[in-house]
Amino acid sequence: MKEFFEPKTVAIIGASRDRTKLGNIILRNLAKSYKGKIIPVNPNADTIEGLKAAKSVKSVKEHIDLAVVVVPAKIANQTVRECVEKGIKSVIIISAGYKEVGEEGLARERELQKIIQGTKTRVIGPNCIGVFVPSTGVDTLFAAHHKLKRPSPGNIAIISQSGAFGTAILDVMEELELGVSKFVSYGNRVDVGEDELIEYLSKDDETKIISAYIEGPKDGRKLYNAIRKTTPNKPVVVLKAGKSEAGAKAAASHTGSLAGEYPVFSGAIRQAGAIEARTVREFVVYTKALSMQPPAKTKKVAIVTNGGGFGVLSADAALFHGLELGEISPTTVERIKAKLPEWATVHNPMDLLGDAGVGRFEEALEAVAQDDNIGGIIVFLWTISSTLSPEITRIITRVAEEYKKPIVAGAMGGLYTKTLMRALDLEGVPSFETPEEAVSAMRALVSYGTARERIERENTK
Amino acid sequence: MKEFFEPKTVAIIGASRDRTKLGNIILRNLAKSYKGKIIPVNPNADTIEGLKAAKSVKSVKEHIDLAVVVVPAKIANQTVRECVEKGIKSVIIISAGYKEVGEEGLARERELQKIIQGTKTRVIGPNCIGVFVPSTGVDTLFAAHHKLKRPSPGNIAIISQSGAFGTAILDVMEELELGVSKFVSYGNRVDVGEDELIEYLSKDDETKIISAYIEGPKDGRKLYNAIRKTTPNKPVVVLKAGKSEAGAKAAASHTGSLAGEYPVFSGAIRQAGAIEARTVREFVVYTKALSMQPPAKTKKVAIVTNGGGFGVLSADAALFHGLELGEISPTTVERIKAKLPEWATVHNPMDLLGDAGVGRFEEALEAVAQDDNIGGIIVFLWTISSTLSPEITRIITRVAEEYKKPIVAGAMGGLYTKTLMRALDLEGVPSFETPEEAVSAMRALVSYGTARERIERENTK
Repeated sequence: MKEFFEPKTVAIIGASRDRTKLGNIILRNLAKSYKGKIIPVNPNADTIEGLKAAKSVKSVKEHIDLAVVVVPAKIANQTVRECVEKGIKSVIIISAGYKEVGEEGLARERELQKIIQGTKTRVIGPNCIGVFVPSTGVDTLFAAHHKLKRPSPGNIAIISQSGAFGTAILDVMEELELGVSKFVSYGNRVDVGEDELIEYLSKDDETKIISAYIEGPKDGRKLYNAIRKTTPNKPVVVLKAGKSEAGAKAAASHTGSLAGEYPVFSGAIRQAGAIEARTVREFVVYTKALSMQPPAKTKKVAIVTNGGGFGVLSADAALFHGLELGEISPTTVERIKAKLPEWATVHNPMDLLGDAGVGRFEEALEAVAQDDNIGGIIVFLWTISSTLSPEITRIITRVAEEYKKPIVAGAMGGLYTKTLMRALDLEGVPSFETPEEAVSAMRALVSYGTARERIERENTK
Repeated sequence: MKEFFEPKTVAIIGASRDRTKLGNIILRNLAKSYKGKIIPVNPNADTIEGLKAAKSVKSVKEHIDLAVVVVPAKIANQTVRECVEKGIKSVIIISAGYKEVGEEGLARERELQKIIQGTKTRVIGPNCIGVFVPSTGVDTLFAAHHKLKRPSPGNIAIISQSGAFGTAILDVMEELELGVSKFVSYGNRVDVGEDELIEYLSKDDETKIISAYIEGPKDGRKLYNAIRKTTPNKPVVVLKAGKSEAGAKAAASHTGSLAGEYPVFSGAIRQAGAIEARTVREFVVYTKALSMQPPAKTKKVAIVTNGGGFGVLSADAALFHGLELGEISPTTVERIKAKLPEWATVHNPMDLLGDAGVGRFEEALEAVAQDDNIGGIIVFLWTISSTLSPEITRIITRVAEEYKKPIVAGAMGGLYTKTLMRALDLEGVPSFETPEEAVSAMRALVSYGTARERIERENTK
């Protein structure tokens, strides 16, 4: 599988001189970022976009690691056959016109299966968006850079059964400045599916977290095993689409997946250790939290804020998400009380009051970070307060680094607030836009900590 | 109550020459936007920020509509007494140091109640952020403009028991370019509470929707009546904080509210016709949707997309939110089929396929807008698609204007996508960032339509 992500030579079969065609767009997008050798393949061109073209893959003398197929469906299988004969190990078939278009396409897809069966050639696709790897520059996305900005290299792997969802999430990641290790959209999934991708990414050093959009798994048992094997190393976040009857029906006509009984699927992946996101928002929140912070050892959390209302909302959300508000130890209470007005009391959620400055936050965060009753910290800021300076971001990141206790932050607001929150993000403390989302981020850290511990325990039995 | 929002003369009692003091910040913020007469009141200054100061309110000869009290708590009651004697009808007490600080403060608050009892003076506060009215420039918020940008005039009224939540929401509204009619944060609520504010705003021509953050109502029965009376005219969105036991305890120490039994509260306000938001995100989504689009007549919706995965996710969310996917009439199916590849089928959710252009969307949206089986339209775009031009925004807004059928839009992505979505927002079609949030926006339109119809029916019995 390595050749999909780190090829030394890439052939674009169906490369075109016409700048409106996919075969040209993909070539240009790839040339923008990929530093290895690119060989356009087109029987009717000598050069394309300044690169020397080959008449066919078989006419290429050197070894080819990865072939990207962009020819019309009716000749696509023939080019794959040539790839097999040439000994190309990795083939991405972008071309559409397979089982998604009915009988004729289904026959074509069965033929494709036969062509690769028993060979060393592995296929991603057909009818897919393909692969994007920021660190090696491999980019088969046929989306213009002005519409889809590419994320920087990072530690998040994304796999998506839906190309539209996958590319949209990439664009969201770029906007949030979250880095990506590997991205794969595998379309009709004639060969490589989510289970193998998860297994591969499980061993990938660049990848710290795997987030997957799945309509229906290729093989439920294999997916279960892949997630279970991965969980001790890194978290797997799953967004299942096709939960309802109507959704499952839509999934069947979309990717031809059998979405299956949702409660069974959900129970199985959770049992295997996956963190299930119920919505796209949760998918992003969980991915962000798990890519930056360590898992929590207990579900006892502390909520620290200078906005009373945020404390109330966060407490509600914590209980809703199955977290517990840890009891603040007497020592911690005393330390924080000393910094508050005489009449104030210290609870969890901890309201440091609207006139809190950076010093009060520093004392409170240090104290709960040192408090063994507390497994994770949610700090939700009222950034608009006149007594709270931007220095608060330095305090939070210092406490996060020093104590290695999971911490998530949040604040609601516009430009000023978002700028402060981005500073936290870039220093490794994930920030979220609402109290409930900050709490659900902590829930992901707790869920992963719990699942990892359970599976390690079960494995050593 | 009118004088709180449209005063001709405002006195700032406790206006200060010191630019770091609230009494100066509030004066400067007010002077930035308010065009009526401002009278700083301070016994030790002749002029403040270029305005002639008065020694006391009683020394002012002309009539004062609104007094803003920013003096220390220990002399605040005395100044309110003078306001009563001067015949000032509206007083906002920003000063803290009342029941939130314990015994001494509680006694002070009881004394305050006695001072205003039986008089014509109405009080907002104490311990509050006060009032913001973009159309008249009244602004008692003590937040710097660079931290809290003020929204433009618009049709959304916000009332909030929490000052931090309220100001943060204002900043969010500004960033989303959602306009505000009136904003009130009423703090300890010694006098004016949510029920009276809702009743007042119900009759306010500027206000199309009232969104309220409530920890515990001042008077549950009155709140019920106010919402019920308002619902036939305009929707009331309520975010209840203090739902859980821990949250309720936090609310008690925050605003001293008795949060009460959440299920009872929730049942009552829903019965009264309120649209309950369960999270801050929903609060914003519901408010945005209801401020722009008419209520839906039925819960049968159509989902239209060019990204299959978004259709699947939206269908799941629709079922989750109690909506129904309306059956597409045969005529509509035929119209849309004519624009799709031969092999494609037309379902609900309606996947117009990844290569859909503006023309295909135009036909589909026109058709479902004319389809009597459909009460509302959710259109979720894969904006990144190379065949979809920005022209799509004009098509959607035209269909929305022409057929008056509720329509919400959405798309996931970064700068390019958000720019397109903002264009929709500004033309009156609300856009949302995830399929689930677009669906929940439609749910708010359905809930309001249903509640309004029920209450009108019950009222005519």
